[in-house]
Amino acid sequence: MPTSALSVERVLTDARSAVVPALRAAVNGLSAPMRRLAEYHFGWSDQQGAHIEDTGKGARPTLTLLACEAVGGEFEQAVPAAVAIELVHNASLLHDDVLDRDRLRRHRPAIWAVAGVPEAILLGDALFFLGVRTLAEAPAPLASTGVKWLVTAAQRLVEGEHADLTLEERDDFSLAEVTAMAHAKSGVLLAEACAIGALAGGADADRIDHLRAYGAHLGQAGQLTDDLLGIWGDPAVTGKPRLADLQARKKSLPVAAALTADNAAARELADLYRGPSDPGQLQRVADLVEAAGGRAWAVEEARRHARTALEHLRAAVPASRAAEALTLLAHRVADRTR
Amino acid sequence: MPTSALSVERVLTDARSAVVPALRAAVNGLSAPMRRLAEYHFGWSDQQGAHIEDTGKGARPTLTLLACEAVGGEFEQAVPAAVAIELVHNASLLHDDVLDRDRLRRHRPAIWAVAGVPEAILLGDALFFLGVRTLAEAPAPLASTGVKWLVTAAQRLVEGEHADLTLEERDDFSLAEVTAMAHAKSGVLLAEACAIGALAGGADADRIDHLRAYGAHLGQAGQLTDDLLGIWGDPAVTGKPRLADLQARKKSLPVAAALTADNAAARELADLYRGPSDPGQLQRVADLVEAAGGRAWAVEEARRHARTALEHLRAAVPASRAAEALTLLAHRVADRTR
Repeated sequence: MPTSALSVERVLTDARSAVVPALRAAVNGLSAPMRRLAEYHFGWSDQQGAHIEDTGKGARPTLTLLACEAVGGEFEQAVPAAVAIELVHNASLLHDDVLDRDRLRRHRPAIWAVAGVPEAILLGDALFFLGVRTLAEAPAPLASTGVKWLVTAAQRLVEGEHADLTLEERDDFSLAEVTAMAHAKSGVLLAEACAIGALAGGADADRIDHLRAYGAHLGQAGQLTDDLLGIWGDPAVTGKPRLADLQARKKSLPVAAALTADNAAARELADLYRGPSDPGQLQRVADLVEAAGGRAWAVEEARRHARTALEHLRAAVPASRAAEALTLLAHRVADRTR
Repeated sequence: MPTSALSVERVLTDARSAVVPALRAAVNGLSAPMRRLAEYHFGWSDQQGAHIEDTGKGARPTLTLLACEAVGGEFEQAVPAAVAIELVHNASLLHDDVLDRDRLRRHRPAIWAVAGVPEAILLGDALFFLGVRTLAEAPAPLASTGVKWLVTAAQRLVEGEHADLTLEERDDFSLAEVTAMAHAKSGVLLAEACAIGALAGGADADRIDHLRAYGAHLGQAGQLTDDLLGIWGDPAVTGKPRLADLQARKKSLPVAAALTADNAAARELADLYRGPSDPGQLQRVADLVEAAGGRAWAVEEARRHARTALEHLRAAVPASRAAEALTLLAHRVADRTR
C-alpha cells in the first residue's frame, strides 16, 4: 500500500509530536536546577530560561515509534522507549562535547561552554539514569528486555567513544577498526532504537533482528554522510565549522579510508596528518583525502549501507505508512546535505 | 542468638569474598582498554598494569549481602545487586573526582590525574551502564524492581552532587538543605544497597523499608563522621590532606551547622569563609567551626543516626549473624577514625 510523500511527512511529524510531550514530562522529573539545564540543552529555552521553539531532529525516537508501528503496534506503546533512547543519546552528546571541547551543539553554545564542565558531566549522568528509569518504569517487555538492550548498547557506545579517543593518538590502525568504532559510536544506539521499538510493538525475534540491522546500517550510512559533510559540506547549512574534523586530526571514515589506501596521495596525506595542525593546509588535506580515494569510498559505502538497510526493512515488515517513512529515512540519510 | 566478635568479622570477610570475583567478572565484560583503566581504579593493578593486592572497603556490597542474609536469603541471591551497586558507586566516584579535582583516590592518584579527564568521564559512564546491566541481567525481582530502585537512587545521587556544586557558591542556605544534599549524595545509595539486598532475599515491603531506613541513617552517620575526620582526623590515617574541605570552602555538615548557628564564632566564621581561602587561617577556621558548635552537633548527630539505624534494623530482622554484623557496622560508623 504505497502512500504519498505528503502522508510520509505526516507520519514523521506525528511521531515527533508523540515524543516531545513525553520527553518534557520525563525531564520534569529532574531536580529544578538540573531541569533548567536540560531545557536549555534540548533547545526548549535560551540561556536566560525563556521559552523558544523546539527544532530538534529527534531521529532516534522517530525510528523507535516507526519500528513499533511497522510491526503492527501503536506509537504509544513505544513512547517510553523513544524517550529513553533520546535521553541516553543526549547524555552521550553532553559528555562527548566535553571530551571533544566542541563549543557548539545544535547551532548554540554547548552546556559545558555556558555552564561549565562539571554541570555538563552531571547533566549527562542525570539524563543517563532518567533514560534507563523511563524504560524500567514502562510495562514489560520494555522494562525487562528493553532495559537490557538499552544499557548494553549504551555501554558499547561509551566503549566506542573511548576507542575513538585512543585512536587519535595512533598511527597503526585498520579501516576495519575505524569502521567498528564508528558503528559503536553511531550505529549501535540507532540499531537498538529500532529493535526496542519493534519489541514494544510485539514483533518476534526474527523481525526485531532485521529492524536492528536496518538501524545499524542506517547509522553507518549516517556517520559516513556526517563525515563527508564535515569536510565537503556547507558550514552555513551544517552549522559546524568547516574542516574542523581535519583540524582536530580526527580519523573520520573518509580520512581513515584515504590513510589506509596504497597510493601517493595517501602517503602525502599521512605525512601531513602526522605533523602539527596548520589551518592554512586544511584544504590541501581535504584534497588529498579525495585524491587518495577517501571521498569516493565514503559516498559509495553510504549508498551501500542505505541499500542494505532497506533490504532488512523489506525482510522485516510489509508495506505500510510506517515502512514507507522508514524507507524515506534510509534514502535521505545517504543524500542529505545537513 | 548473639554471636562472637570473631564470627562477625568472619561474615564481613565472607561477604567481601563473595563480591570480589563477581565484580572482577563484570569488569571483564568491558572492552580491553577500558578494563585496564577499571582495574587500576579498583586498586587491582598499578599504573603499569601489574597485579596488586585488593584492599578496598566495599561497604555497599557488604551491606547488600548482609541485608539479604538478614531477611533469610543466601549471599549468592544478592551478588548481582552488590556488584551493580559497587559499579554505580565507583562510577560516581570517578566523575566526582573530576568535578572536585581531587587528585587522590584510595591513597593513589585518581584516574583523571593519571589518564586524563576524558578517560575518567568515559570509564565512569561505562561503569554506570555495566552496573545497571549486571542488575538487569539478574533474575526477577532484581531485574525489574531492583533496576528501578537503583537508577532512581543514582539519579538522586547525581542531583545531590549538582546541589552541592551550586551550594558552594551560595551564602543563603539552611542546615536542612545541606542535610538533604548530604543524604542524596551519600545516604540514598547506601539505603538502596540495603533495600535491594533485602529484595533479593525475598523480604516483604515493610522489612525492605526498615532496611532502607537503616541504610539511609547509616549513610548520614557515615557522612557526618567523614566530615568530622576531614577537619579533625589524622591525615596519616584518613589518607586525605588535612583541612582540605575547609580550604575548598566546602559546606560540609559541621561547617553548615556552625555557619547557621547564632553566635559570635558563627559570625566570625562566616566572614572568614566568604573571603579568599588562606592556608594560614585554616586552623582558625576549624577552631571557629568547633567554637560555633558545629563539631559537637555533628558528633551528636552521627550518634543519633547510628542509633536510629539500629532501631530500624531491630524492627526489620531477628537476631542472626548477619544482623549482628549490621549492628557492628552501625556502631563502627559513628566511632571510626579513618
